[in-house]
Amino acid sequence: MDSIELVKNKIRSIKDFPVKGIIFRDITTAVKDKDALQGMINFLTERFKNKGIDYVAVVESRGFVFGSALAYNINAGCILIRKPGKLPAETISEEYSLEYGTDKLEMHKDAIEPGKKVIVIDDLLATGGTITAACKLLKKAGADVKAAAFIIELEELKGRNNIPGGIEVVSMIKY
Amino acid sequence: MDSIELVKNKIRSIKDFPVKGIIFRDITTAVKDKDALQGMINFLTERFKNKGIDYVAVVESRGFVFGSALAYNINAGCILIRKPGKLPAETISEEYSLEYGTDKLEMHKDAIEPGKKVIVIDDLLATGGTITAACKLLKKAGADVKAAAFIIELEELKGRNNIPGGIEVVSMIKY
Repeated sequence: MDSIELVKNKIRSIKDFPVKGIIFRDITTAVKDKDALQGMINFLTERFKNKGIDYVAVVESRGFVFGSALAYNINAGCILIRKPGKLPAETISEEYSLEYGTDKLEMHKDAIEPGKKVIVIDDLLATGGTITAACKLLKKAGADVKAAAFIIELEELKGRNNIPGGIEVVSMIKY
Repeated sequence: MDSIELVKNKIRSIKDFPVKGIIFRDITTAVKDKDALQGMINFLTERFKNKGIDYVAVVESRGFVFGSALAYNINAGCILIRKPGKLPAETISEEYSLEYGTDKLEMHKDAIEPGKKVIVIDDLLATGGTITAACKLLKKAGADVKAAAFIIELEELKGRNNIPGGIEVVSMIKY
């Protein structure tokens, strides 16, 4: 069994969470399995090693789980992109739309230096609202955003079409 | 310069956050530095490799940054301990006291099997309320909690005295 199949088998599908009609892809059961965890981190590492990446930006909270191990493996720094009010120093922020209302991501103003090569990691690509806000934040700071990578992509939502041009989109498991 | 000194130099101290009188130890500047990130993950890996640890439990959110890389390095599974309402399947929960009011942590009911050896990771040990709740959750599920480990320990708050007996307490940087 290859690692993509192994990981897919370990992802649990939960009906009607968080609302009726949604099938929630529960990645906790894959993270819990040591072989699936190796598979997910190795997939990302193979894609991004030896590419001169300076930083891996990780999106709160599940992005933290995959991105920091990747940053460690490719010897990059790790930048935290967080929900509002969590970062202690001066921040820049980016608002994005949800189905109802808006949400916001924040990053320290000095989190990245202009021109540095960065990739952004989250666990799941749905409509792409969160990751697009993260990419905009990094670009606002002058970073060179090379790629956005995910463990899971919900292809029917076409989120990759919403991610700004010039950014490679990588995903391991597609539904 | 050894890695403890390197990491300590990269941690930023911010006065009066989140409230007046508190010196906040900002670990984002250490995570951002690739050498400090290597130092922190290597410190944890050296401590826990070849000890037969089955799982690394990680506490939301900053614990995710350190614990998943550790789990990967020691070939363990990774268990997410989260704030209320984030986990999609059946959970068990544990309440704990804050300065004003209470907070709660949740874990999937099937996150760990009885008797499995687990260590718990968070970024910082203050009064020990959060980590103690995490340890209680794991014990409730029948796990064998071997250690609680942190990057930073605020020694004057004596948090390690509040952690249940029989659990080794490990920290890299002490203030």
